Amino acid sequence: MVSQSNKPCDLVLFGTKGDLARRKLLPSLFQLEKSGLLDPQTRIIGVARHEMSQAEYVSLVEEALHTFMKEDVCKVTWQRFMAKLDYCMIDMRNLDAYAALKDLVDQENRVMVNYFSTPPSIFGSICKGLNAAGLINNETRVVLEKPIGHDLESSKVINDQVAEFFNEDQTYRIDHYLGKETTLNLLALRFANSLFASNWDHNCIDHVQITVAEEVGIEGRWGYFDDAGQMRDMVQNHLLQVLSLVAMNPPVSLDANSVRDEKLRVMKCLRPITKENVAEKTVRGQYTAGVIGGKAVPGYLEEEGANTESNTESFVALRVDIDNWRWSGVPFYLRTGKRMPEKLTEIVIHFKNMPHNIFKESFGTLPANVLTIRMQPREGVEFQMLNKVPGLDDHMNLQETKLDLSFSEAFKDQRIADAYERLLLEALLGNQSLFVRRDEVEAAWSWVDGIFQAWEETNDKPKPYPAGTWGPEASALLMAKDEREWD
Amino acid sequence: MVSQSNKPCDLVLFGTKGDLARRKLLPSLFQLEKSGLLDPQTRIIGVARHEMSQAEYVSLVEEALHTFMKEDVCKVTWQRFMAKLDYCMIDMRNLDAYAALKDLVDQENRVMVNYFSTPPSIFGSICKGLNAAGLINNETRVVLEKPIGHDLESSKVINDQVAEFFNEDQTYRIDHYLGKETTLNLLALRFANSLFASNWDHNCIDHVQITVAEEVGIEGRWGYFDDAGQMRDMVQNHLLQVLSLVAMNPPVSLDANSVRDEKLRVMKCLRPITKENVAEKTVRGQYTAGVIGGKAVPGYLEEEGANTESNTESFVALRVDIDNWRWSGVPFYLRTGKRMPEKLTEIVIHFKNMPHNIFKESFGTLPANVLTIRMQPREGVEFQMLNKVPGLDDHMNLQETKLDLSFSEAFKDQRIADAYERLLLEALLGNQSLFVRRDEVEAAWSWVDGIFQAWEETNDKPKPYPAGTWGPEASALLMAKDEREWD
Repeated sequence: MVSQSNKPCDLVLFGTKGDLARRKLLPSLFQLEKSGLLDPQTRIIGVARHEMSQAEYVSLVEEALHTFMKEDVCKVTWQRFMAKLDYCMIDMRNLDAYAALKDLVDQENRVMVNYFSTPPSIFGSICKGLNAAGLINNETRVVLEKPIGHDLESSKVINDQVAEFFNEDQTYRIDHYLGKETTLNLLALRFANSLFASNWDHNCIDHVQITVAEEVGIEGRWGYFDDAGQMRDMVQNHLLQVLSLVAMNPPVSLDANSVRDEKLRVMKCLRPITKENVAEKTVRGQYTAGVIGGKAVPGYLEEEGANTESNTESFVALRVDIDNWRWSGVPFYLRTGKRMPEKLTEIVIHFKNMPHNIFKESFGTLPANVLTIRMQPREGVEFQMLNKVPGLDDHMNLQETKLDLSFSEAFKDQRIADAYERLLLEALLGNQSLFVRRDEVEAAWSWVDGIFQAWEETNDKPKPYPAGTWGPEASALLMAKDEREWD
Repeated sequence: MVSQSNKPCDLVLFGTKGDLARRKLLPSLFQLEKSGLLDPQTRIIGVARHEMSQAEYVSLVEEALHTFMKEDVCKVTWQRFMAKLDYCMIDMRNLDAYAALKDLVDQENRVMVNYFSTPPSIFGSICKGLNAAGLINNETRVVLEKPIGHDLESSKVINDQVAEFFNEDQTYRIDHYLGKETTLNLLALRFANSLFASNWDHNCIDHVQITVAEEVGIEGRWGYFDDAGQMRDMVQNHLLQVLSLVAMNPPVSLDANSVRDEKLRVMKCLRPITKENVAEKTVRGQYTAGVIGGKAVPGYLEEEGANTESNTESFVALRVDIDNWRWSGVPFYLRTGKRMPEKLTEIVIHFKNMPHNIFKESFGTLPANVLTIRMQPREGVEFQMLNKVPGLDDHMNLQETKLDLSFSEAFKDQRIADAYERLLLEALLGNQSLFVRRDEVEAAWSWVDGIFQAWEETNDKPKPYPAGTWGPEASALLMAKDEREWD
């Protein structure tokens, strides 16, 4: 196994002119440089198929930083950062072209980390090209951007293409939800605090809600999105990853495989959704024209480039049951959609109601304790509990209070790093904990494929919902059936 | 049973010239008036044995308010308050003298609440006097200040003297620790929040510490104190009351008797301390000369009026075991003393350590979660947990964070009422929940008497400790034996 190392790296950025590289990867690398977290010897080598001089590449990077960084671009850092940059023109489908990289990397002194920020259809070609140029050794790593396939079968094809040249312990599959500060704090919360550790099961938790709401629509990628849909684009990866972190049993250690073994065990316990129960456990939606933030927006079928016959879902709500000892009888409700009223990602743990209420003066039914782990728009962890309102006038008047459980006074001026900063750093350090293992990807696809099959068998069509709402009426009904409601 | 009522009252303050009345009771009544919590028809009748005109009494009250209230005396409130005042001269040992009260009270329209802020030796006389004057009916109440006796036997004498004229449901025994805001918030914390309710036992809690530290010494009351000692003065009442609130099972309701039944059950489960185990479970101390806040102070035996042969303790530390299902194996450590380094009253719940540590990078041993319920100097509830420190540089660096669980933002500008305000209000409303029932007093004495007997049988003498320290070395050893330490 490739162990963690602090060796300098050659980070080769395939697709350096693409949207992700310019928006996220280059700014994140710049932040790492600014924080002194890149080794002085580490090099960053952009790869694209366009002819570009070194100077042209440097100014492309500079422009990306100015365009996409929230903070000012620190000049001192920029001097150090630009000195790390190289550009290499490669037509990625041409195996002979990869030899050009040989002059730029130094595999004797640096670890080569290949970041595939390209469509997955060419992952195989890149691997072959690297191999043809003799650039793959036991230390070489590969970082794969999603999507890894379209279903179980196609994901196997892509993973096989990479696996021909890279072992699993050289392969880093990105799910940027795993790089968020709150994701890591969730591990601390669950496994370093006995108060939560001993309450984290069906005895104490009533249900869990996971919401990933986007305000945006298709953003000019209609064809790409329509091929995937919200289930493949969001549920199969992000939502199931988050679910498995919330639901997993305590890992033996924080080692990559301990954590991933436990996540995998959760994925394997997801109760299959079949044609028999798909109608009561899932809701598909597709947005129609509506209003968001006072602005009229078109429906999914009216977007530019739309196929007006499309049955692709832009919204999914699911009731997920986990068939194991810990979660028996505790549903996990997932929902995600585009054109929702706001951008919001959060995990909400609803504890059980107190079995008996001695505070009837304040509440006919005592509100349950609620733990909210918020990833968007502002990362944080909140705990909602009941406290006595200080004062004499009411004998024992309780009130719900929200407490900030994570970023208390001590941390409040800390900058919260972008998920890609952390993931790039971990890939450079050779730590796989926050990357998705192949068996996880396949377990997730396997479960998701079952839902697609059930939809097909029952001829399920997405239900319309106006842009700017929380999805079709059926989503509220999914909860109402269980006498619950979305947060 | 006398039920809660909003009827106006005649509050008769026996001992109105005394220290407690001037320092606490009159200012607290004034605050209740200011908050509009006294019925417009309610009267306050001061009783003492001195001849005083109405005007002299009013100015005595006014002076007490100016001397002992932290806030300015609001003039508008004062006009309303002074109009409620009456004075009645009574030689409390003279049964005939009580007839004078008849002209001031109106038992047809008001409930008579007799507050005995006098030495307990005359409680019996006052009861007889009230009876002789025909002032006791089924609605009449009596509020008793501590101490109720010196041991079980003498407490029975006092309680019998009162019980001859007042039923238990007319009798309100003060323990001002029960009137504190944090005491009530402890009930909310424990019984309205499932997160805490389900963790409140030997499975999750390692041990509990209760500290009541006084900075002051004897304050000119040497003879009085020497007769009692710290065990009778603090442990038998305050510390055991606090312990029973922390340890009790959930009461069926907040009714006075539901809560007191559960407290009593705890008292009855206290494992007796006998001559066999007294040496390992108790520490007595007596302070010697020392320094507090940079000022030299005399030892207990050098105080004014001291009997230099005294063996009275000014410090006690105890390991208390509660023999029931909930607390088996969970020691409660109590300590209280005079001339400690600071004034501090707190309950600290130490949760169990996590059984397994996956954060060895941050902590060799993970610190346990700790819940602190602070009564002095500043009331509040804090929870100490572990959080990830935001940031990239340390992979998974945890840090202990203290969270304010009670008086969060929402409450931070609220004035915290003095315990006596609440207790006076509850007595006027006829709610006994926050008062100590006779069987509780007797159970507490019975347990405490056993300790005195064990000390006598083993000829235990108090160990010296310098003023300004946390008690004798033996107190630290009491904890060290169990591989624990005081907070």
